[in-house]
Amino acid sequence: MSKRHKKLEVNQRCLPDTGSSPGVIYLDDSSLEPKLTLHRISGAQYTSENIDSFAGVYESIKTTKQTFWLEIKGFKSLPMFDLLQNEFGINKLTLEDITRTHERPKFEEFETYAFAVSRMLMLNEEKELENTQVSFILMDNALITFQEHYVDCIQPVRDRLTAGKGTIRIGGASYIMYAVMDVIIDTYIEILGGWGDELEEIEDRLMDKPERSIMYDTQLIKRHLISIRRVAWPEKDKINDIMRSDSPFIQKQTKIYLKDAYDHCIQAIDLIDSLKEISVSNIDMYLSMISIRMNEIMKVLTIISSIFIPLTFIAGIYGMNFSREDPVTGKLMPMNMPELYSPHGYLYTVIIMVIMAVLQLVYFQKKGWFK
Amino acid sequence: MSKRHKKLEVNQRCLPDTGSSPGVIYLDDSSLEPKLTLHRISGAQYTSENIDSFAGVYESIKTTKQTFWLEIKGFKSLPMFDLLQNEFGINKLTLEDITRTHERPKFEEFETYAFAVSRMLMLNEEKELENTQVSFILMDNALITFQEHYVDCIQPVRDRLTAGKGTIRIGGASYIMYAVMDVIIDTYIEILGGWGDELEEIEDRLMDKPERSIMYDTQLIKRHLISIRRVAWPEKDKINDIMRSDSPFIQKQTKIYLKDAYDHCIQAIDLIDSLKEISVSNIDMYLSMISIRMNEIMKVLTIISSIFIPLTFIAGIYGMNFSREDPVTGKLMPMNMPELYSPHGYLYTVIIMVIMAVLQLVYFQKKGWFK
Amino acid sequence: MSKRHKKLEVNQRCLPDTGSSPGVIYLDDSSLEPKLTLHRISGAQYTSENIDSFAGVYESIKTTKQTFWLEIKGFKSLPMFDLLQNEFGINKLTLEDITRTHERPKFEEFETYAFAVSRMLMLNEEKELENTQVSFILMDNALITFQEHYVDCIQPVRDRLTAGKGTIRIGGASYIMYAVMDVIIDTYIEILGGWGDELEEIEDRLMDKPERSIMYDTQLIKRHLISIRRVAWPEKDKINDIMRSDSPFIQKQTKIYLKDAYDHCIQAIDLIDSLKEISVSNIDMYLSMISIRMNEIMKVLTIISSIFIPLTFIAGIYGMNFSREDPVTGKLMPMNMPELYSPHGYLYTVIIMVIMAVLQLVYFQKKGWFK
Amino acid sequence: MSKRHKKLEVNQRCLPDTGSSPGVIYLDDSSLEPKLTLHRISGAQYTSENIDSFAGVYESIKTTKQTFWLEIKGFKSLPMFDLLQNEFGINKLTLEDITRTHERPKFEEFETYAFAVSRMLMLNEEKELENTQVSFILMDNALITFQEHYVDCIQPVRDRLTAGKGTIRIGGASYIMYAVMDVIIDTYIEILGGWGDELEEIEDRLMDKPERSIMYDTQLIKRHLISIRRVAWPEKDKINDIMRSDSPFIQKQTKIYLKDAYDHCIQAIDLIDSLKEISVSNIDMYLSMISIRMNEIMKVLTIISSIFIPLTFIAGIYGMNFSREDPVTGKLMPMNMPELYSPHGYLYTVIIMVIMAVLQLVYFQKKGWFK
Amino acid sequence: MSKRHKKLEVNQRCLPDTGSSPGVIYLDDSSLEPKLTLHRISGAQYTSENIDSFAGVYESIKTTKQTFWLEIKGFKSLPMFDLLQNEFGINKLTLEDITRTHERPKFEEFETYAFAVSRMLMLNEEKELENTQVSFILMDNALITFQEHYVDCIQPVRDRLTAGKGTIRIGGASYIMYAVMDVIIDTYIEILGGWGDELEEIEDRLMDKPERSIMYDTQLIKRHLISIRRVAWPEKDKINDIMRSDSPFIQKQTKIYLKDAYDHCIQAIDLIDSLKEISVSNIDMYLSMISIRMNEIMKVLTIISSIFIPLTFIAGIYGMNFSREDPVTGKLMPMNMPELYSPHGYLYTVIIMVIMAVLQLVYFQKKGWFK
Repeated sequence: MSKRHKKLEVNQRCLPDTGSSPGVIYLDDSSLEPKLTLHRISGAQYTSENIDSFAGVYESIKTTKQTFWLEIKGFKSLPMFDLLQNEFGINKLTLEDITRTHERPKFEEFETYAFAVSRMLMLNEEKELENTQVSFILMDNALITFQEHYVDCIQPVRDRLTAGKGTIRIGGASYIMYAVMDVIIDTYIEILGGWGDELEEIEDRLMDKPERSIMYDTQLIKRHLISIRRVAWPEKDKINDIMRSDSPFIQKQTKIYLKDAYDHCIQAIDLIDSLKEISVSNIDMYLSMISIRMNEIMKVLTIISSIFIPLTFIAGIYGMNFSREDPVTGKLMPMNMPELYSPHGYLYTVIIMVIMAVLQLVYFQKKGWFK
Repeated sequence: MSKRHKKLEVNQRCLPDTGSSPGVIYLDDSSLEPKLTLHRISGAQYTSENIDSFAGVYESIKTTKQTFWLEIKGFKSLPMFDLLQNEFGINKLTLEDITRTHERPKFEEFETYAFAVSRMLMLNEEKELENTQVSFILMDNALITFQEHYVDCIQPVRDRLTAGKGTIRIGGASYIMYAVMDVIIDTYIEILGGWGDELEEIEDRLMDKPERSIMYDTQLIKRHLISIRRVAWPEKDKINDIMRSDSPFIQKQTKIYLKDAYDHCIQAIDLIDSLKEISVSNIDMYLSMISIRMNEIMKVLTIISSIFIPLTFIAGIYGMNFSREDPVTGKLMPMNMPELYSPHGYLYTVIIMVIMAVLQLVYFQKKGWFK
Repeated sequence: MSKRHKKLEVNQRCLPDTGSSPGVIYLDDSSLEPKLTLHRISGAQYTSENIDSFAGVYESIKTTKQTFWLEIKGFKSLPMFDLLQNEFGINKLTLEDITRTHERPKFEEFETYAFAVSRMLMLNEEKELENTQVSFILMDNALITFQEHYVDCIQPVRDRLTAGKGTIRIGGASYIMYAVMDVIIDTYIEILGGWGDELEEIEDRLMDKPERSIMYDTQLIKRHLISIRRVAWPEKDKINDIMRSDSPFIQKQTKIYLKDAYDHCIQAIDLIDSLKEISVSNIDMYLSMISIRMNEIMKVLTIISSIFIPLTFIAGIYGMNFSREDPVTGKLMPMNMPELYSPHGYLYTVIIMVIMAVLQLVYFQKKGWFK
Repeated sequence: MSKRHKKLEVNQRCLPDTGSSPGVIYLDDSSLEPKLTLHRISGAQYTSENIDSFAGVYESIKTTKQTFWLEIKGFKSLPMFDLLQNEFGINKLTLEDITRTHERPKFEEFETYAFAVSRMLMLNEEKELENTQVSFILMDNALITFQEHYVDCIQPVRDRLTAGKGTIRIGGASYIMYAVMDVIIDTYIEILGGWGDELEEIEDRLMDKPERSIMYDTQLIKRHLISIRRVAWPEKDKINDIMRSDSPFIQKQTKIYLKDAYDHCIQAIDLIDSLKEISVSNIDMYLSMISIRMNEIMKVLTIISSIFIPLTFIAGIYGMNFSREDPVTGKLMPMNMPELYSPHGYLYTVIIMVIMAVLQLVYFQKKGWFK
Repeated sequence: MSKRHKKLEVNQRCLPDTGSSPGVIYLDDSSLEPKLTLHRISGAQYTSENIDSFAGVYESIKTTKQTFWLEIKGFKSLPMFDLLQNEFGINKLTLEDITRTHERPKFEEFETYAFAVSRMLMLNEEKELENTQVSFILMDNALITFQEHYVDCIQPVRDRLTAGKGTIRIGGASYIMYAVMDVIIDTYIEILGGWGDELEEIEDRLMDKPERSIMYDTQLIKRHLISIRRVAWPEKDKINDIMRSDSPFIQKQTKIYLKDAYDHCIQAIDLIDSLKEISVSNIDMYLSMISIRMNEIMKVLTIISSIFIPLTFIAGIYGMNFSREDPVTGKLMPMNMPELYSPHGYLYTVIIMVIMAVLQLVYFQKKGWFK
């Protein structure tokens, strides 16, 4: 129960204020203090440092040939956004999109930069799905990423930067953007894998006993799958947009790698559809098992009732007190229940009862009710 | 019940008269007296006044450089429409569209103006969905809006004009049109959020007790969702049409903002689909809970019947009155119910009954009926 | 029942003969004698007369500047079709399409004329849906319409011609064609409105009592909706074809009006979809109500059976006839049903029975079965 | 049962051998000896003869101006295919397509001929659906048709050739191809009409009594509809391909007629969809009727059980044998069942029973169980 | 059960590691030692040998005019991939795709080669579906195929090479690629045929007895069909891509054959859809049969209970012990159960019981419960 509610809240927190002016930085009490990390990459050399302000950073970007990756986590600093608007020349509509963290994945090109949004999905400790936004501002030799929370799933990219193997240090800013997006998509697939396991486990429980929780749990996963599908589809479109764009900020060789991320995204969508089919089939199985159980319960009731109710009736007949003789005149009334006074009346009655029961058992057997 | 009926009426009131001539101003007894408000905006300066007639307004529009927003609420004035047709040069088909308030959202370009229709959705005090029409006539430096009722949801736009912050006073007539449309779309999302809450509340009741009203209420919301979807889709297309049009009345920078409204519209459609999925899943849950309850009811019935009916039969057997001795001859008939005359007959019978009951309980336990 | 059958017949009568030669005038015994009406329109002047033959009409059309509308109802006259083929120059495939009255709505252009088909839907006195064909041949200043039956729904067009208001007398032949098509589409919406009312009424009955006829009636409307949808979709395409065609027979200003008819057609489709959703939801409601009723019935059965079957068993126990004393020796057998001989045996038994019943009632109450 | 099985076999016989080489003539034991018929048409003159070999036919085709139609039924003659390959210049892939009679409808153009495939559907005497292939090779003034079986549905074309009316003798080879295809499509519609009748008849039985066979029969028709739909869709595409092709073998005026066949094909698809809807609605009706019957059965059981079980309990009470006096001491035990010794005990008991029964009847009446 | 689990594992093994660097050869403990087979084809001559290394092969390919087909099964050899990368010039992203054996069917063109992926489906001995990857590298006169396992379904291609008939030895490398792909698609159809048989067998069991396993087995096949559909669709797209590509490695005449493979792929998809419909209809049949059985069970219960419960009540009435005379005063109490003392009381009672039973039987007969 609590799980499901959390999910819906996530959906609804994403609603903008009705009628508010566009282009406004959107901060509330839950906004976090910004944490800044600056990665400087130039082939062999790579440094990463936490910084307090990026006041002089734009200067370095413009004047050196290094690749910069500036990570911004937490938005609670209006001066920071002023700096971005005035020094970096970021459009205020872009800044609004960054801080209103309910955007769908998209890719937009501006004169001096390109802007992209990814949705990062993670399972927190309570196995709830967290849906947060990662925004990218991509410039010639710099990438700025924005996250509303501190926790993320892109540590592998930082690790690969530290390790320095492969293309990561020489691919430029757009390659790092690709790497982050790819990790995010891979996380989708990882989460889907976990749900796949859960669906299998539910299926095992289903075979065991069709209990109410199966319905709840499967519906919950199905609902999660619907949410993730709503993220994966625009994600796919976004990567396609990036591949087909002729933005100068996207290096040609990066596009080859993006094809890979695109394939992964399609794989994720495939997996979502396939898990959805499995959950629907689980629910169908569950409902059919309830019907079958009902059938079985009814068969037990019907067999026992059908056998014993007529027998009880016969016993009731011979439990009647019709008088053998008139209590006043003492005259014999031979028509009243003569069976009771036959020497083998009881025996015959029991034999008849046994025959009736056997006949019914044979009938039910023939109908296949014992199979 | 009454809610649902109101809704259908709304749908049907929207039907035009069969075979009436096109281009006819459509007024009936429920039409309201027009209320006119004229907003004059020129950057720093902003005035808003209620006027009785806009006889000289067209002259001002043509001769000054200010931006005009003329709000018309209520249509019961044929001279007003004559003025619009003759002085403002509005096509009579456009005027018909304005007064026949059942148009789908659309955008049409004419030589001297552009015409657009939005559907304004609001919840009234009885929580019923009101679906009214807002029509826009956009000229070079003037916007005329038309509403059939006095109540609306676009007060935030007027407030922003009064406050004067942001682009609202300097964006021109097309920006104000965008602002009104955006508020209307935001209201969709707000209403959807309310239904999301209602669905959650229904879900809680569902967990509690699957009662008939859950089905009614969910179906009602589902039907509302269908209605709103029929509004949101053409709305999205309309905004797309405006963005792609090369109408001289739409400023270039307004189109950037319209992209934002377009995104909100897609978000609304997303939310509608997602709520629809939730309501379908609620109904599925509900039906499965009814099945499960049926199963439980039948289990209780079957367990109790299966245990007691055979026992009652045994009791019935020993309630039979087969005679121990022939009433006439007095001869003993030892075959008739000798158990009744055994010193421990009662005891043995009770023991057999207990064994039978225990065996059945064990059987049901094994079948998992007590889980 | 009879209603539904009539409908299916309509569908099947529309099948052409397998393997017949194309371009053949198709007349059978049910064909009606032709009734001809000629309308001559020239702005202020308008005359309408029933004629017996249109032998000289083509001559007048060619030589005067008036607008002609020739209405032909009933096809039982081969000479008439010869005249059309030879004098008016109508292609024989067109004539076949006119007489084989099962065509889908379509628009075809020929060198000397344009050909269009509309499907006219009307409810007859028995509230059955009549689906007949109206064919149009449009020439420079003449429109010929063909109907297989005498009854139609286009009287409003004739009335507007008589009244002479609006564009009807000055719009030319293509405007009259538009007017007829528009009336036909408006009739769709009118019929749909009627079904909407019927669905509401069914819904009320559903709330009252879920009886079998609800299923029948809803299915019938659903089936009608499917039929009308199959007409409305190609109708929409046809009007779109006319609007986009550059046929010289369609005046430019008529196309603006056709946009209006197009919008009405989309509205009709919208309404169909919406009524279909409502009928599906009615059926769902109905089935869920049957399930709920079943639950209630079973609860009554289970409560009463569960309470009284065990009590009856106890009563049965003390109705057994185990003997207190050996009938032969007269020896007391104290183990046989000593309860029967206790001074308060009856009282205790009744008290136990009441306790059992109360416990069960409490159990059922807790399970929520009385809610 | 047997019907359904036959159908599935048809589907599976259509599977090619895995990994066989392409371009191989595919003959098996069930192949029939070829029957050849040559039609020569030249306007007024028309001859049709059965021939044994078409050795010299190609020569005649090349040298005379007549239109030839060569019908080949049965493929068991490799020399025939050699002749076709070497003399007529037919590609061996085409010949494979002709003999592997499981192709979907298609149209392919080659340099010296055009190739088309139609699927001929017929009901045999056991009312089973036969799905066979008709292949067409169309050359300048010759048409060759191929059928695997002797029975077909294109007799009307031969009859029209004999009659000589209409375009059939003067339309050229492509017109004859059109005529054959059109007859095949008309046969689809005829078969669909038959199923429509069957569905109606099933519907009548459904109203009468919801028995198991309704489900079987409806499912069978539904499955047939699925098969025919899989044929009708590519057929439609094929005819569209022919219409849009600029093949020199298709005369221009034939394309006008093909538009007619195309319309018929769309009508067939319409009819299929409509029949599918009807069969789905029949199944829904059937399932709802089962539910309703269940409700009725349960109501009977519940009413009778609820009335008589409590009454039986009361009778059971007064059937108990609590002793009036202590059998040993003879002391009166007035607490034991004093009712039994009241002068009107029986009367009061019966009155109470009647009241209980009436109260329950009123309760059930109020619940609407007797409606 | 075990079957289904295996299947899901297959799905999940296909997930890449989150965040791993792209372009990395992916080998794990389950990788097999490579087995290399080199086929050299030059029209008449054809040799096939197992080789240990293909160190000098690239040299031969470049210098001779023969067609080469190098089969590589098992990937556990990094030097092999180095050779491919450095000598053959294969892109490392391609090599990653070859070793990450979870790719969807696709076709990619590079400067010196074309790359394609097919998914090979086979049923292993336990009738489980094995889904493995076959990758193709196509160069001017050489084809390299990659398989992760030793077992495959493409033996027919090798056999045709050995036999030397048809185009196989003269069609070049692209023809061999086509031949392999075509065999793979034919295997799909073969597997589908097997499932078709299984569905028929399930259907027979269904007619026999609706047992739980029918639901399981049908769901299992349905799930398999979903998997195979997810493979067949991109396969179709891939073949279309190859046909439309202007890659120099694809000979023109090969494309004609690819059209054939494309048709087979569409046939497979058709068959999948058709089998899916059949399995859905089986499940529907199954659920309806459960409902019908429930109806029958309930009818038996209701008939027997309704007949005997009232009769038992009557017997209970006359089993009551209302006293005929006051035990204390000995006064006669004539109102207490006078029936018991009537000479024909028993007879009348039995007659009444028989009449009641007969009336109920007639009622049930009329309701059609015995049909």
